[in-house]
Amino acid sequence: MKTQVCIIGAGPAGLLLGHLLRAEGVDCVVLERKSPDYVLGRIRAGVLEQITVSLMERLGLDARLKAEGLPHDGFNLADGERLIRIDIAELTGKHVVVYGQTELTRDLMDAREERGLQVIYDADDVTLHDVAGDAPFVTYTKDGTEHRVDARFIAGCDGFHGPSRKAVPASVGQEYEREYPFGWLGILADVPPCNHELIYANHERGFALASMRSETRSRYYIDVPLTEKVENWPDERLWDELAIRLGPQAAAHITRGPSLEKSIAPLRSYVFAPMRHGSLLLCGDAAHIVPPTGAKGLNLAASDVFYAARALTGFFRANDNDAIAAYSDTALSRVWKAERFSWSLTRLMHRFPQDGSFERAMQVAELDYISTSRAAQTSIAENYVGLPV
Amino acid sequence: MKTQVCIIGAGPAGLLLGHLLRAEGVDCVVLERKSPDYVLGRIRAGVLEQITVSLMERLGLDARLKAEGLPHDGFNLADGERLIRIDIAELTGKHVVVYGQTELTRDLMDAREERGLQVIYDADDVTLHDVAGDAPFVTYTKDGTEHRVDARFIAGCDGFHGPSRKAVPASVGQEYEREYPFGWLGILADVPPCNHELIYANHERGFALASMRSETRSRYYIDVPLTEKVENWPDERLWDELAIRLGPQAAAHITRGPSLEKSIAPLRSYVFAPMRHGSLLLCGDAAHIVPPTGAKGLNLAASDVFYAARALTGFFRANDNDAIAAYSDTALSRVWKAERFSWSLTRLMHRFPQDGSFERAMQVAELDYISTSRAAQTSIAENYVGLPV
Repeated sequence: MKTQVCIIGAGPAGLLLGHLLRAEGVDCVVLERKSPDYVLGRIRAGVLEQITVSLMERLGLDARLKAEGLPHDGFNLADGERLIRIDIAELTGKHVVVYGQTELTRDLMDAREERGLQVIYDADDVTLHDVAGDAPFVTYTKDGTEHRVDARFIAGCDGFHGPSRKAVPASVGQEYEREYPFGWLGILADVPPCNHELIYANHERGFALASMRSETRSRYYIDVPLTEKVENWPDERLWDELAIRLGPQAAAHITRGPSLEKSIAPLRSYVFAPMRHGSLLLCGDAAHIVPPTGAKGLNLAASDVFYAARALTGFFRANDNDAIAAYSDTALSRVWKAERFSWSLTRLMHRFPQDGSFERAMQVAELDYISTSRAAQTSIAENYVGLPV
Repeated sequence: MKTQVCIIGAGPAGLLLGHLLRAEGVDCVVLERKSPDYVLGRIRAGVLEQITVSLMERLGLDARLKAEGLPHDGFNLADGERLIRIDIAELTGKHVVVYGQTELTRDLMDAREERGLQVIYDADDVTLHDVAGDAPFVTYTKDGTEHRVDARFIAGCDGFHGPSRKAVPASVGQEYEREYPFGWLGILADVPPCNHELIYANHERGFALASMRSETRSRYYIDVPLTEKVENWPDERLWDELAIRLGPQAAAHITRGPSLEKSIAPLRSYVFAPMRHGSLLLCGDAAHIVPPTGAKGLNLAASDVFYAARALTGFFRANDNDAIAAYSDTALSRVWKAERFSWSLTRLMHRFPQDGSFERAMQVAELDYISTSRAAQTSIAENYVGLPV
């Protein structure tokens, strides 16, 4: 098979890129290792920045997002008993939209046929070849047969564990990484949220987050040591702990219910640079991971895809190579700032085992400062809604 | 001797408090272990916030400060080649004044006689007694004779190593402390500054600061390992290193000259809480130390003194005990925020030995973010000029 862009991975990044390229008349094909149901079964983020919403709007695929998404004008930082509200709408003139990543993926998936986007699921052994040059190709097997896709470009949208990043020689790329000494234990339940906006809490027993997917589906997290096992957390124990960590104000409104999903995810900061090697462009988790604090992961993938779509469209429509050449620097400039925000919000809201009383006092002082400073609140808010693309 | 307030220490904090109390008709006496010349020989900070300037104004002792002090409307963060200017005047409507701590101390010292402020120098073995109760007293020896000062209150303005803080029982106070793995090697020289505003630089070889005391006296620093010795840094070597770390733009304007003073000072963050125990009020370095990054030390002492003078005056003039009771919480609220700012600016501008490539990338990302965000610049600027008292 021959195409202009071979996209590896049919998660939200790959599908979004595919649709954007199709809308501009660029040929592409998406290869996905898993089945559609498996992809939709992944429980992920649910807070969309304006860049992500605007790409769905541009594609005309935002009907359900508009109808079902919950615009949020603020969120809260909890410091013991107190809630510090960050009024993002008033401070930045923008808002975020709560809409599950699964729902966004479903919308993109459902539009494949109508938009003529070809996605090949269950593609095994996807392997990238000759990415450094102008004639890369991808091989995969499906139903026991080996296939080959020749393309001018390959877009690696295949997440942290996919083959794309690994196709860049070690001598070319540099990895920046930080691991955290805790993971997030998350519970998804069909109960109304305890608060109409998110609450990030730094309690003496640890971190907690009250989030949601909709008005009837809640998502809560606490941080736990990396050695912790989900079996040790029957639903009732987790609800009890959430009620303590989120503080009495929120606890009074928690509705408990059976977990639809419960799992522990480690936290990691990771950046791979450069994000382009020859004809291979990396987008989203394939190139970088943020800890989930601040909900930047999916939105960073969206801004990468925005830059990649613009560069690829310019190349195929106007023979313009400049945006391709600049892709890595352009994308990384925004990536690094989001990495910084996610890292600093993680540090502010979690208790680190190595921290002493001074470091803990610095968290309290920072929250106290934030509560009194419009400038500090604006800085947080503008990062939360997403820095300009 | 009997007085209302016995002040321990005749540095800027003690003298400022003494003058403020005298101006309100409160009796006080200041005890100082060293001689006037020794006190004036200490080379310290030189950037005054508005709170410090306003206290000198209120005392009518600001004539020389007004004439010789240099108002600064901004300062710079250097990231490799680039200067990021923080326009504090435009962002906050305020400015800072460059005026050496030594000069401020001299102005306060020179006004002793005219204002009837009694300062006893060369007071040895200063010891605080019965501070928990209502009738504390202080003993000291001078010229071989032991003296006793009875007072209603004692103000500990005797710095980190003085006896005041040690008079608080260990069971009452809590210490918060962080040491840094480097010190500042400083040089004072009678040469014009390389730039009309301060430059804080984070260079791959380490930190540097271009500062000044006047238009003809410069103060420069670099960070060095704690094991470093000043003998290893002849003037020329230090000027060479400064030229590299400050970057080519600043280096082109460095005027070299012989050092008037050259020393290495360790960096420390330290807070002792509470800042009041019974009839003892701690002010300035006696209760807290900040790393010099951001020049908060003297200014924090000034705000402590502002709160202490107000509380003591209220007590003696209106029998009001509330401000005395609230002194520690009131002062600490501002202290903690300044500790946070000094700590975070220190972390942003220095290379820490334990930092990996990710932490270094976070410094670059933060500087890059600051360079593009008015909110981030405003947050830095409002801390730099001093948060409201």
